[in-house]
Amino acid sequence: MTMRKIITLLTDFGTADGYVGEMKGVLYSLAPDADVVDIAHDIPPQDVERGRLTLARIWRRFPPGTVHLVVVDPGVGSSRAGLVVSSHDRYLVGPDNGVLSPALLAGGARVVSLPLSPTASSTFHGRDLFAPAAAALARGEPIEDLGVEAQPPVIRRTPEATRRADGGIDGEVIIIDRFGNAITNLIALRGGTIETASRAIPIRRTYADVPPGTPVAVVGSTGFVEIAVRDGSAARTLDLSRGSRVTLRS
Amino acid sequence: MTMRKIITLLTDFGTADGYVGEMKGVLYSLAPDADVVDIAHDIPPQDVERGRLTLARIWRRFPPGTVHLVVVDPGVGSSRAGLVVSSHDRYLVGPDNGVLSPALLAGGARVVSLPLSPTASSTFHGRDLFAPAAAALARGEPIEDLGVEAQPPVIRRTPEATRRADGGIDGEVIIIDRFGNAITNLIALRGGTIETASRAIPIRRTYADVPPGTPVAVVGSTGFVEIAVRDGSAARTLDLSRGSRVTLRS
Amino acid sequence: MTMRKIITLLTDFGTADGYVGEMKGVLYSLAPDADVVDIAHDIPPQDVERGRLTLARIWRRFPPGTVHLVVVDPGVGSSRAGLVVSSHDRYLVGPDNGVLSPALLAGGARVVSLPLSPTASSTFHGRDLFAPAAAALARGEPIEDLGVEAQPPVIRRTPEATRRADGGIDGEVIIIDRFGNAITNLIALRGGTIETASRAIPIRRTYADVPPGTPVAVVGSTGFVEIAVRDGSAARTLDLSRGSRVTLRS
Repeated sequence: MTMRKIITLLTDFGTADGYVGEMKGVLYSLAPDADVVDIAHDIPPQDVERGRLTLARIWRRFPPGTVHLVVVDPGVGSSRAGLVVSSHDRYLVGPDNGVLSPALLAGGARVVSLPLSPTASSTFHGRDLFAPAAAALARGEPIEDLGVEAQPPVIRRTPEATRRADGGIDGEVIIIDRFGNAITNLIALRGGTIETASRAIPIRRTYADVPPGTPVAVVGSTGFVEIAVRDGSAARTLDLSRGSRVTLRS
Repeated sequence: MTMRKIITLLTDFGTADGYVGEMKGVLYSLAPDADVVDIAHDIPPQDVERGRLTLARIWRRFPPGTVHLVVVDPGVGSSRAGLVVSSHDRYLVGPDNGVLSPALLAGGARVVSLPLSPTASSTFHGRDLFAPAAAALARGEPIEDLGVEAQPPVIRRTPEATRRADGGIDGEVIIIDRFGNAITNLIALRGGTIETASRAIPIRRTYADVPPGTPVAVVGSTGFVEIAVRDGSAARTLDLSRGSRVTLRS
Repeated sequence: MTMRKIITLLTDFGTADGYVGEMKGVLYSLAPDADVVDIAHDIPPQDVERGRLTLARIWRRFPPGTVHLVVVDPGVGSSRAGLVVSSHDRYLVGPDNGVLSPALLAGGARVVSLPLSPTASSTFHGRDLFAPAAAALARGEPIEDLGVEAQPPVIRRTPEATRRADGGIDGEVIIIDRFGNAITNLIALRGGTIETASRAIPIRRTYADVPPGTPVAVVGSTGFVEIAVRDGSAARTLDLSRGSRVTLRS
């Protein structure tokens, strides 16, 4: 059994500009035994919500001790704090803008606020503030040594579905994924039908339960209902986007 | 000499949704000594053929013992099987849809079919079925312990060029690459000329043998003839796409 | 303290075609103890200048001993040489087209020219020439064993800003980054104003010093002035692109 230390990277930087490369250089220099693992760098620019939802999927899948470095940071250089979080044996580092909410809400989280280094660039805290903190965690420094007690952090939550007077459940699309699947905030334990503005779509077990080109709803891999078109794009075919209203009928 | 274990990842998932991140978390959790290496996640969605051709380039370039995890899987959740393949000292895991054909056709391949875990999501076998199998291989579990004898797997092949009555060889474009080069299924051992619908293009040694902006055919790095425009895009300039007919004249 | 050997990869190959995958296979096969780290593969095709500027950001951030493999190579197969550079305890391998200039100009660089292997593909030196050289460096082979004395290499430089008769400094936009920020070649130690064709924009400390949607200039993370629009795209809003003329007024 190794005691390897993993640092994951989740950003909206793309890679062509070298911002991610600089952060990797800092991490390998300051934590020479760590392994740096790319999660994504193509979060849409400054899309904190998309970053939060991606983090929600992945952070507890990694081994205990993993450090997740998350930089989707439209407020860089402002008075927003930088956070270090310890939650369920994983560590997270990133801006205090809600992107770290999945770990903050998981129960038992400890949080400290990173002091601003006087030499930090005011436009690139990922390199000058967050990467050094992630490297320190990977080297085994205790979270308490990295910062001071934090103000209550910013929390973002997936909007909750609401029950209608007629028994249906109103929800919305929270992500359009790469395949054009529309992931909703609806939970359907006993099947039913999803109504969009234009269609009523039955919940089936999997995409392949309908013919190619046909809309279908399934319970996706995070437990939420998602709307798909087999071998096609639900977003395009059904004109769905983030925020589109949907209703579950049982 | 290390006995490091490499698991490569080739998918059509993109990275922003976190699907690849979840798979990496599973791999590092279940195979804590392995190194996970990205091949590509930007295979066009559900483009099994492009996945197959990319795998063909890379699978034998990696050291013996490498595990290639390939998830381009439009049939997820259907009755299509999941496969584990051992071929030429490398291992491959992925859906039974032809994407693994390069290894299956290489001679001496052993194949087993993965049993469907009752807890597997019906929409994300990459995380719940294929990644655990790849991790097991990286830990040294024998392929026979992972599954049962497989039905004859689906095989996809590069279309073969055909000889014409007039001595030419008819072929087609099989990939447009990032540079707009049109890679064909033609083999030209002794030079000649490539005819497209609009042009006759001489085969030269390399792109730089013609002036900028000029079409040129070369024997590419896989041995197939490719059509390029120096410092430009052959696909755009010559209106070529996957399936475009081409003829070799010697 | 580990003596790990890192090989970074910076290319314009994208990943879907498998070119990067092939290079990784060669590296892990020929340097089995090395760790391969992605910098970027989405440099715009054949954009040597963008590759150079990305390399400039990252090469000295990595630990001593790191090998940077850089393949942005429109002249592949021509008579342009392949270079191995040793500079400031890092190594670099790539084509002699100026992309390695940041290391060549850093002072004290040693350079050798790689002999062309007779079995190298004339279209893919990244796989057949540069990756084997990078692997040899990672294995500890001395640079002198890899090649012969090089001709004076091609050097590319960031265009220099020039002083105007009226005291202003004329410069230009050298990169539009992923966020639409326009990075210039201007250095502003004491603040001032940046004039574009259409606007005069004050230099502030950081993006957040102006309201959303407002143009702002800041001293960016490389020390150059960059023009941004808070929570927006300066390139789009202010119609800026690479080469756009700008003037610093103090």
